[in-house]
Amino acid sequence: MARINDHYLKLPAGYLFPEIGRRVSRFATEHPGAKIIRMGIGDVTEPLPPAVIEAMHKAVDEMGRREAFRGYGPEQGYDFLRTAIAENDYRSHGVNVSPDEIFVSDGSKCDTGNILDVFGPDNVVAITDPVYPVYVDTNVMAGRGGRLDDSGRFSELVYLPVTAENNFTPALPTRHVDLIYLCYPNNPTGTVATPETLARWVDYAKQNGSIILFDAAYEAYISTPGIPHSIFEIPGAREVALEFRSFSKTAGFTGARCAFTVVPTSLKANAADGSQVELHRLWSRRHSTKFNGASYVVQRGAEACYSPQGKEQLRKVIDFYRENASRLREGLAALGLNVFGGVDAPYVWLKTPGGAKSWDFFDRLLATAHVVGTPGSGFGPSGEGYFRLSAFNSRENVEEALSRLRRVLA
Amino acid sequence: MARINDHYLKLPAGYLFPEIGRRVSRFATEHPGAKIIRMGIGDVTEPLPPAVIEAMHKAVDEMGRREAFRGYGPEQGYDFLRTAIAENDYRSHGVNVSPDEIFVSDGSKCDTGNILDVFGPDNVVAITDPVYPVYVDTNVMAGRGGRLDDSGRFSELVYLPVTAENNFTPALPTRHVDLIYLCYPNNPTGTVATPETLARWVDYAKQNGSIILFDAAYEAYISTPGIPHSIFEIPGAREVALEFRSFSKTAGFTGARCAFTVVPTSLKANAADGSQVELHRLWSRRHSTKFNGASYVVQRGAEACYSPQGKEQLRKVIDFYRENASRLREGLAALGLNVFGGVDAPYVWLKTPGGAKSWDFFDRLLATAHVVGTPGSGFGPSGEGYFRLSAFNSRENVEEALSRLRRVLA
Repeated sequence: MARINDHYLKLPAGYLFPEIGRRVSRFATEHPGAKIIRMGIGDVTEPLPPAVIEAMHKAVDEMGRREAFRGYGPEQGYDFLRTAIAENDYRSHGVNVSPDEIFVSDGSKCDTGNILDVFGPDNVVAITDPVYPVYVDTNVMAGRGGRLDDSGRFSELVYLPVTAENNFTPALPTRHVDLIYLCYPNNPTGTVATPETLARWVDYAKQNGSIILFDAAYEAYISTPGIPHSIFEIPGAREVALEFRSFSKTAGFTGARCAFTVVPTSLKANAADGSQVELHRLWSRRHSTKFNGASYVVQRGAEACYSPQGKEQLRKVIDFYRENASRLREGLAALGLNVFGGVDAPYVWLKTPGGAKSWDFFDRLLATAHVVGTPGSGFGPSGEGYFRLSAFNSRENVEEALSRLRRVLA
Repeated sequence: MARINDHYLKLPAGYLFPEIGRRVSRFATEHPGAKIIRMGIGDVTEPLPPAVIEAMHKAVDEMGRREAFRGYGPEQGYDFLRTAIAENDYRSHGVNVSPDEIFVSDGSKCDTGNILDVFGPDNVVAITDPVYPVYVDTNVMAGRGGRLDDSGRFSELVYLPVTAENNFTPALPTRHVDLIYLCYPNNPTGTVATPETLARWVDYAKQNGSIILFDAAYEAYISTPGIPHSIFEIPGAREVALEFRSFSKTAGFTGARCAFTVVPTSLKANAADGSQVELHRLWSRRHSTKFNGASYVVQRGAEACYSPQGKEQLRKVIDFYRENASRLREGLAALGLNVFGGVDAPYVWLKTPGGAKSWDFFDRLLATAHVVGTPGSGFGPSGEGYFRLSAFNSRENVEEALSRLRRVLA
């Protein structure tokens, strides 16, 4: 009889955000008058910039005229977009990434999950803790998780705690690991990595034959000089790392859908016979076999992010969210809370007052301030006692939320 | 050291269509004056219908206004689209599929590959031969292929030949199989299955605990009364089948990207402990963990396919391609060729004259008529000696191709 992938049964029932959704829905039903402010899920609120809208309209028009119509595009993305990315996100910053190392997709969530296809089942995986849950869940699905224990940890994954105690800088693993997920600016903690921290990881990867899966989805939020925007700013990274980037948080594409992954041609891993195989070749095969390119209309919208007008418009939106983050951070600190992140990232990470459990604090804020955040423990055991607030919101909501928090937390 | 997925190395180097692309490029470079007519890859040529264009413009406008902007949508697709699909593609045809059994995605190629995630590695897979190469390649990547032998067959896959000898109706497998790919109207042969043929497969699946992966990407091309458009028209299919559908060939979305998969809540497979697990639950988990929804703009375009104007406009485009197929079919038959398909499908499948090898015939047509088709052997060993021509083209090109073929094949 047909058999399921039993690894799926090892996953806990609920993904974090649906559980938040359920609690908020229940509260809203029971309190129909409450004006709930949602700062839980990290979803943008500002519209797409005019340059992007204009480019998408133009592309839609092309799709309606026979002579301009586009059918199947290249699975790896159109040259116009790959070239714009290579030039603007890398070459102009002195980073060596060529257009054919860029694979355009419909989202970084897809890419971070799908990349596992090209790796064998016996790789040992390290994640920071707390962490974006998709890294964990997709490895469990692929059979690399082992069993979930009572502490909320999977037995085969290597957890690297990032807490206030180590200044949110994970220690190097004490056992050998093959794949290492790093996300900077970090989701959920909002913290960043210095060049020295990243260089230590590149060095570890070189010495251990490991590969770094670097998630730079929030790089546009970096304002502090000297903080790397790309792992490829670190010498030697092209031999040990690949990088995920997205238009979601930088250009408001969470509903439009466009992202890309950089796989350097110099990145290799071992085959069973001991030979070294280019991951670029495998990912290219995966991409052209299981994917058919991102929507043409959306790729034209993404391209417009790199026009002079597009850049200027994006910068303003990012500045707007950054100012939200700054106000959140300062407002909460003024209440005496221990606050992290929020400087080079759209997330503020705080220690719950009085050492409350994350979900208890979630319930308390929802009930008393009608403000929704994300419980830190939802991102991993070391997130317990922390709480994430997203700066993706209107200024009005941010101020209103702060004013309510002052009232209930003072 | 990090290890690759070694199964990838079992795949032959080139996917079919890139190899065609290389040969055509070389010929075009060597013969710059040649006006090449491309009837190889099955890609649409007509623009998106006005109703779709209008809906996409409206959605782009919404994305540019704060109060109408859409960020992350539901991973399974917006209700407006799932409801329209359930009503128009199923309920109005007397088929019982509910909106929550429909998972909207960015393409059937993705879905047919990704669905394998929820199945265990030890399922035995049956494919018809010739077949859409993605079914084979994605199973090889997942470790279910075994070794490629000299005949072009993977040792662990079960090949079910479909040729003129068996009237393109595959025999039931003689060894037990767990997963069965069926595609009707068929790519590449352009043939269809009667209700009796499908009922025999549903019966086989029930008796053997197998699951049918039914690909209905070309259902809109069916004109013969009584031919099923969906596997779910067959009694009992909800317990043994899932179905892939796409807007690509029905509405010209090959570049826009939208498709869907129907997973009935009644479809189950075995877990290791012998319990039965709903595949709907697993696919839902996969979809919300490794995917973030199809583009909002594109989903609004897909929704417009079901408006009265949209339906009428789509029907005209389908009729246009169908007339192309009919002319190809009759024109080639008049040359004395053995021609199949082309009635309920946009593909004409022909036996190469004089029993020529598929690739030899490909090279001959390219060199003498400057017409590109697809070698049957590219779809599997039993496709050797056959050739596929696509009806996705302008009327002018179809007539010109026929006139050239008359000249070189007469």
